[in-house]
Amino acid sequence: MYKQIEELLENAFDEMVDIRRFLHQHPELSFEETETPKYIADYHQKLGHTVRTNVGGRGVVAELDSGKEGPVIALRADFDALPMQDAKDVPYKSTVPGVTHACGHDAHTALLLVLAKVLNEHQAELNGKVVFIHQFAEEVIPGGAISMIEDDCLEGVDEVYGTHLWATTPTGKVEYNENALMAASDRFTIELQGTGGHGAQPHKTRDSILAATRIVDALHHLVSRQVDPLDSAVLSIGSFEAENAFNVIADKAVLKGTVRTFSEETQTHLIDEIERTAESIATAYGTQAEVRYVKGYPALINDAAKAENIRAAAASISAIDEVIHASPQMGGEDFAYYLQHRPGAFFFTGAQHPDWETTYPHHHPKFDIDERSMLNAAKVLGKTVVDSMAR
Amino acid sequence: MYKQIEELLENAFDEMVDIRRFLHQHPELSFEETETPKYIADYHQKLGHTVRTNVGGRGVVAELDSGKEGPVIALRADFDALPMQDAKDVPYKSTVPGVTHACGHDAHTALLLVLAKVLNEHQAELNGKVVFIHQFAEEVIPGGAISMIEDDCLEGVDEVYGTHLWATTPTGKVEYNENALMAASDRFTIELQGTGGHGAQPHKTRDSILAATRIVDALHHLVSRQVDPLDSAVLSIGSFEAENAFNVIADKAVLKGTVRTFSEETQTHLIDEIERTAESIATAYGTQAEVRYVKGYPALINDAAKAENIRAAAASISAIDEVIHASPQMGGEDFAYYLQHRPGAFFFTGAQHPDWETTYPHHHPKFDIDERSMLNAAKVLGKTVVDSMAR
Amino acid sequence: MYKQIEELLENAFDEMVDIRRFLHQHPELSFEETETPKYIADYHQKLGHTVRTNVGGRGVVAELDSGKEGPVIALRADFDALPMQDAKDVPYKSTVPGVTHACGHDAHTALLLVLAKVLNEHQAELNGKVVFIHQFAEEVIPGGAISMIEDDCLEGVDEVYGTHLWATTPTGKVEYNENALMAASDRFTIELQGTGGHGAQPHKTRDSILAATRIVDALHHLVSRQVDPLDSAVLSIGSFEAENAFNVIADKAVLKGTVRTFSEETQTHLIDEIERTAESIATAYGTQAEVRYVKGYPALINDAAKAENIRAAAASISAIDEVIHASPQMGGEDFAYYLQHRPGAFFFTGAQHPDWETTYPHHHPKFDIDERSMLNAAKVLGKTVVDSMAR
Amino acid sequence: MYKQIEELLENAFDEMVDIRRFLHQHPELSFEETETPKYIADYHQKLGHTVRTNVGGRGVVAELDSGKEGPVIALRADFDALPMQDAKDVPYKSTVPGVTHACGHDAHTALLLVLAKVLNEHQAELNGKVVFIHQFAEEVIPGGAISMIEDDCLEGVDEVYGTHLWATTPTGKVEYNENALMAASDRFTIELQGTGGHGAQPHKTRDSILAATRIVDALHHLVSRQVDPLDSAVLSIGSFEAENAFNVIADKAVLKGTVRTFSEETQTHLIDEIERTAESIATAYGTQAEVRYVKGYPALINDAAKAENIRAAAASISAIDEVIHASPQMGGEDFAYYLQHRPGAFFFTGAQHPDWETTYPHHHPKFDIDERSMLNAAKVLGKTVVDSMAR
Repeated sequence: MYKQIEELLENAFDEMVDIRRFLHQHPELSFEETETPKYIADYHQKLGHTVRTNVGGRGVVAELDSGKEGPVIALRADFDALPMQDAKDVPYKSTVPGVTHACGHDAHTALLLVLAKVLNEHQAELNGKVVFIHQFAEEVIPGGAISMIEDDCLEGVDEVYGTHLWATTPTGKVEYNENALMAASDRFTIELQGTGGHGAQPHKTRDSILAATRIVDALHHLVSRQVDPLDSAVLSIGSFEAENAFNVIADKAVLKGTVRTFSEETQTHLIDEIERTAESIATAYGTQAEVRYVKGYPALINDAAKAENIRAAAASISAIDEVIHASPQMGGEDFAYYLQHRPGAFFFTGAQHPDWETTYPHHHPKFDIDERSMLNAAKVLGKTVVDSMAR
Repeated sequence: MYKQIEELLENAFDEMVDIRRFLHQHPELSFEETETPKYIADYHQKLGHTVRTNVGGRGVVAELDSGKEGPVIALRADFDALPMQDAKDVPYKSTVPGVTHACGHDAHTALLLVLAKVLNEHQAELNGKVVFIHQFAEEVIPGGAISMIEDDCLEGVDEVYGTHLWATTPTGKVEYNENALMAASDRFTIELQGTGGHGAQPHKTRDSILAATRIVDALHHLVSRQVDPLDSAVLSIGSFEAENAFNVIADKAVLKGTVRTFSEETQTHLIDEIERTAESIATAYGTQAEVRYVKGYPALINDAAKAENIRAAAASISAIDEVIHASPQMGGEDFAYYLQHRPGAFFFTGAQHPDWETTYPHHHPKFDIDERSMLNAAKVLGKTVVDSMAR
Repeated sequence: MYKQIEELLENAFDEMVDIRRFLHQHPELSFEETETPKYIADYHQKLGHTVRTNVGGRGVVAELDSGKEGPVIALRADFDALPMQDAKDVPYKSTVPGVTHACGHDAHTALLLVLAKVLNEHQAELNGKVVFIHQFAEEVIPGGAISMIEDDCLEGVDEVYGTHLWATTPTGKVEYNENALMAASDRFTIELQGTGGHGAQPHKTRDSILAATRIVDALHHLVSRQVDPLDSAVLSIGSFEAENAFNVIADKAVLKGTVRTFSEETQTHLIDEIERTAESIATAYGTQAEVRYVKGYPALINDAAKAENIRAAAASISAIDEVIHASPQMGGEDFAYYLQHRPGAFFFTGAQHPDWETTYPHHHPKFDIDERSMLNAAKVLGKTVVDSMAR
Repeated sequence: MYKQIEELLENAFDEMVDIRRFLHQHPELSFEETETPKYIADYHQKLGHTVRTNVGGRGVVAELDSGKEGPVIALRADFDALPMQDAKDVPYKSTVPGVTHACGHDAHTALLLVLAKVLNEHQAELNGKVVFIHQFAEEVIPGGAISMIEDDCLEGVDEVYGTHLWATTPTGKVEYNENALMAASDRFTIELQGTGGHGAQPHKTRDSILAATRIVDALHHLVSRQVDPLDSAVLSIGSFEAENAFNVIADKAVLKGTVRTFSEETQTHLIDEIERTAESIATAYGTQAEVRYVKGYPALINDAAKAENIRAAAASISAIDEVIHASPQMGGEDFAYYLQHRPGAFFFTGAQHPDWETTYPHHHPKFDIDERSMLNAAKVLGKTVVDSMAR
């Protein structure tokens, strides 16, 4: 049966490209999506799927019911774009100034819609149900996943899958991991308040720059000293703001940084340590530290068995050259939330065109994907659905 | 004889105030002075003094020759203003937007002109000559003193005196020191060049912020470890510029700071140490440091005997309540250059009005002086001239 | 066939215990072993095995030749003890003052000898050969493995296996890893030479303690900043020696530390960074650093297929409750060298007695093992040999 | 009159030498003096002076009463020795093993006794009284001065003077200061308690060495940042004790250091800052700091008028080549306590022999003085007494 699905997908490749390019020309920012969800809802309605809109805000959930007993399998694609000017010189360039699909969510949506259509055509041979979760606002914390889950998008769902087209991995490859695929990605700000004054009279001041430098030093000891060497974590301070005249003593300095972790235990420990370190060292220097720590998406932890489903499905598809056991990425993805509620798996589908001389990374103004990758992703997801229903 | 001079000065106080207020309303920036030197030259010419203009650029040097043998005594006043909006609400407010006499150089000029007039009236009773050095551009390095000296403003001069009205010392007090009165005041910039990157991948970068924090730490060890505890020095870092997104690793950080010293040996040692420290620590962190060190005015070192002349003169004047042995100040003043060529002394004349509730420091937009202080300063300088001529 | 071997091993358990206790009472230090190798050689000779003594120094290599075609499988056990007083109160306590088997090498030897005897009894049913590598001096760098390999102990060998009884893992469990099982473990010393002097005159000195503290700080940034967050490494400084009177400035400080890594690339990078960091910061403080870095055993990297052999063998044995995928350990083991020359695997055999209230870690004066663990280890190794020969 | 005293002193030089050498051969440790005070008391009793023994413990106070109205002038000499083996090869070498006069207190005593004798001979020409304060235990905190003052050694005294023979200043010179002559000299210990462990598992520990290095760094910022640049202070850390194996993480580290200050305000501020800094940074690193701060002698601050007396006296004596305005020394001297109760002055009398090739500093096992310096010191003190009585 799956072979037919694969053939149908191949025949529908042009439609996939058309949808993707249409969306690419009409991108919408996170939490501001209006036309894209309408477009998606229309598509599913024409297929006769049950469609729920405004799920958790701007999400769309469509259901293909085979009418037979069987598992309920959810597939998720995100559809928001980024606040950045499209710098590519292509016919399907963004028509919206300052907004572009520089992360491939247009393609995620296109491939899921066409896969829905193909599965719909084959529903007689399916068991159970397929739930299509079209998520808004993946790019901006808190993301759309939390509110869609709260609005019951996972109700009745047994398994959930998703993929990200990956422009720095060659088309034809699939990357999976049976455990952590992506890190939790948090940010923090530390404001140091000292007592400013004239550069010639340090004894009448409390130097916020000096105190801040000591906090930077000490924070960089946390990963090496307070994280299990066999766990992974990153703490980086990207910004140190204390721009003043040369001959003053600064009353204020602001540090901004990021923390990446794979376990909640390590994350919690680092939060405690960052606060304790900043506050204690501030005290040592007679200054005051205000730490604001903003948690981003949690670590994306796949279910081992579901990840094996993906691996096995990918391995069986001839268009997939290689299935790679991926090292966990230090990025962030709110698919993590679905996995906190249901077993499932997320994976990367290579989308780097073999002819490219230069590959622009995700979030680059010239970012693009090899569109053939959409077909590969659709095949892996389609095969996973069919195999799971056959179990 | 001096009693008459004192009386004449008191009678001329209104004129002093008029001149000061006129100049206050018409301030001119350092190295851009045109009308102020004209005004000064006119005043001296009307008195019949020999006047040389454009000395070393924009300076004015006038000479009162008693026609008799005797010492040649120079008195110096500066006349430039600051690039700052006058925020005072007074009838004599600056009429030039963004420029104001917020350091009292208008009053220095006014008191010296009126003193010149009074001494002129008494020239029959003087010996030798009095040279009035009206200096441009004290506020901006390299200052006007160097070029005026190169243009021979000290030719034939035996002694040189000057004062600064001091708004944070009560009117009626005079502060002197027989040795160092003001520190050398230098500035430096350190540019750290690392290798930037993504905050999640520190191992592919060389973190310029981290390296810069370590340089700040280490520079603050120089004064405590590499300066003789019985000498004095200050090193302050007023600015740390590395403002970026929270999730990057910064490729560049810029530090700006100041160094104050009283001895050339300590200054030279600190310059060497700053360079070595910055460059070595940059190397330790795989980054590169570029140190730019700009020497400001040298330490102002009075001649002990000439400072004693000031002290004795001040002590003999009834309007002066107290003559204070001043601690050396950490500021900077290009009168220091005159003292590198001739014996002389510089002193502070208290200019804080007894009725003020708030005293605005020098270079504050609301800075003002108690105008009675001009009279005190003129009396001390006049008495010093008369006494020196009598020796 | 293997079932019989398992039965024979169980019957020989008392002999295993006797041998282990005899060796426990007669421990010998690394590189000083004389009686232990004799004892081992005798045992094999009585079994009729070909025996080579003084291999690479003090090693013993025995060979059981089935006379038939087949793989050559080496099993390795180490036999040296530690320079520490036995603090246990047991009948088989060490009789040698200051020397004891506090790491279980006595048991490694006992179980391998008895396994040799059992396999010997079954040689008719084996194919190929079994090589018993009895290694001296595992505890002291450079270890005995290197010279035994140079002396051809691996000649003709196809696969090599070994285990360590592990007192902190419960008896009945086996821990394996298909890749890195143990880290490379290196040590380093940094000598800081400054210029000493009186505590009241820092400007005449170069403070070695201050410089050393800055090096400690900076070295602790290497793991967090210069190691891939997805790799693992540890750098610890255990000793800071600069004991002096309170009122001096120290001319010398000595740091001692350890580095643990799993990849040669990371190890090499850290060595470079340690040297650069120490030398540059020493220079920044006008001092001199001498870095001595001594590489210990390399990381122990199992062959994935051979580790799978161990896992499968262990999983098939009823006495083994659980086969655990072990996290890599930060310790060090010179079995790593055999794996640089032949495919093979090393694993941990749980040896923590279920009745113990306190478990003493390896190298503790009260360290002991649950002797039943010897049987488990012998079974896993025996099954691995039999299965490999059957392939 | 004074000329006769000077002559008498010169005539008594041999006796001075004899007494000094006798005391040198029979040194006694601080707080253990028994024979020296007896010797001193005897000497004064023979002169007919009123003598009080066991003053404040082991002190001797003798009084020469002229019988006439006049000022009461105290002269102080200390008489304790040091716990150190005399390493000089001289006929008057110490006869007590491990104890020697390596600081010149023997000579202080000798010169004061002979001066007492000479003044006694001249008492007819004196007014008022001379009080001879022979102090025990200057070398060991809390020193003898406090208890002698509590035991009324200053009762009725109007002025107090003392000197220290100074082996690194050439004989013939006298050094004085009208204000601070010697710093307060304190010591401190910081014990850092962390949580030790294995070097490969930093996350299970709290590294006391790392925490201690950060405290060292931060303490060295106090002098440069929290002390008025125009004041003087020194903080040095002479000892960092944390000697362990290379592969542990240290649970404990001990720092020892010294602080020198000239003002009580700065001293108090630094004590507060040291405690706050150490405790806060310890907290930042999850460790605990115990700070023990032991105040030594306070700063020795001369009375300006009394110092002028010394200067004038010294300047009038032909044997004194030069009277030097001394920079304040960073050492410590309990004469400071007398000056907290009475106006007075302390000065240094040069005692470096012109023929010495090597000068051994105070507290060196080969320390010695040019004995001619005793005569110079006696003359300055004698002249000061005579002049003061003449006022």
